[in-house]
Amino acid sequence: MDGAAPAAAQHPHPYVPRDLNLPGYVPVLLSQSTIVGVYLGSSLLVASLIWLLSGGSPRRSTVDRLLMCWWAFTGLTHMILEGYFAFSPEFYKNPSGFYLAEVWKEYSKGDSRYAARDSAVVSVEGLTAVFEGPACILAVYAIATNKSYSYLLQFAISLGQLYGTAVYFVTAVLEGDNFATSQLHYYAYYVLANSFWVLIPTIISVRCWKKICAAVKFQAQNQKKAKSR
Amino acid sequence: MDGAAPAAAQHPHPYVPRDLNLPGYVPVLLSQSTIVGVYLGSSLLVASLIWLLSGGSPRRSTVDRLLMCWWAFTGLTHMILEGYFAFSPEFYKNPSGFYLAEVWKEYSKGDSRYAARDSAVVSVEGLTAVFEGPACILAVYAIATNKSYSYLLQFAISLGQLYGTAVYFVTAVLEGDNFATSQLHYYAYYVLANSFWVLIPTIISVRCWKKICAAVKFQAQNQKKAKSR
Repeated sequence: MDGAAPAAAQHPHPYVPRDLNLPGYVPVLLSQSTIVGVYLGSSLLVASLIWLLSGGSPRRSTVDRLLMCWWAFTGLTHMILEGYFAFSPEFYKNPSGFYLAEVWKEYSKGDSRYAARDSAVVSVEGLTAVFEGPACILAVYAIATNKSYSYLLQFAISLGQLYGTAVYFVTAVLEGDNFATSQLHYYAYYVLANSFWVLIPTIISVRCWKKICAAVKFQAQNQKKAKSR
Repeated sequence: MDGAAPAAAQHPHPYVPRDLNLPGYVPVLLSQSTIVGVYLGSSLLVASLIWLLSGGSPRRSTVDRLLMCWWAFTGLTHMILEGYFAFSPEFYKNPSGFYLAEVWKEYSKGDSRYAARDSAVVSVEGLTAVFEGPACILAVYAIATNKSYSYLLQFAISLGQLYGTAVYFVTAVLEGDNFATSQLHYYAYYVLANSFWVLIPTIISVRCWKKICAAVKFQAQNQKKAKSR
């Protein structure tokens, strides 16, 4: 099973379309529950840590503390998971059981364009990892220290996440939407997992939009008052 | 030369890569100077019109008037030119000399992924046409009527334009960056024409960022003062 199989040979991988050629593919070694469990577990750990650490200031609202948890979680996901994918074109050949390679071998069952190195997927993941990941961590800091750019930064990252997800889904449809190993993988990985990055950025964008518009209105009204005095 | 040439036959189009198969391709009928001239001429007309119409209010700054010209120009470009492309997969077969089809036949000399219907290009152009185009026209209105969401909307569209251009360039590099008929087409269409949608959105984003942060800071300071009285 080692590499360089001719194009017409069988393809010893679980992905769809079946004629996808992945010479040197090494099957996923960890179980699905281990892969998903480690991700959810470490995410919960990060969120709990941020929740506890952010509880020090009595002036900080529950919403702000939840947002800090979200930004830490999504920022680390962008930088570590998506960053690894963007810069590891041969992850599917990894024989060591390395967790990050296993994640993408498993996720490719929901969307084989990851293993196939689809250029739209790689560019969206690359931009997300390089620009949005660090920006998310900056957002945690901005909320913690009450920066004047806090809402605007959260708005900008959320829009970026929405744009990236839109390109991700639209290109899938344009390319035939036939990249999932099974219905279960399609709905669990491709639809459900990504839906959080549609839903939550939408809510945050709307909230930031309102907060910022209120501030601009406040400034306009009070500067008018000051002038008319 | 009519359609359905077998894959190994010669390809009667001017695009690179030469093996790109475009059955039914009809050569560009208008001259390059006509195509570029009509675009620049009508853009100048739109900008002049907006400039004149926006001169009514003495309170409106020159910067705001220039921004209204930009948003009208780029909004119409997104909706008409890019909108036509996104929803006309067979533009390269158009035999009528229809201007919008000619534009994209000509532009494909700088980036053949347009004729080849690259999914990343189509999805970015589709999102730009459907969401950003109308939003640009809303930005003209928002500046004209001094809406509190004016800066934020301009910021959002500019980020969208930057994200779209980033996906556009990154996917080109990932796919081999070999889509131009000549060096001239590469630099004039692919590099130069797109560079305006990097440069101008960057300047506008930075300006809006500063304006919005100033408003948020103003609100925070004045609400603090009001409380401490």
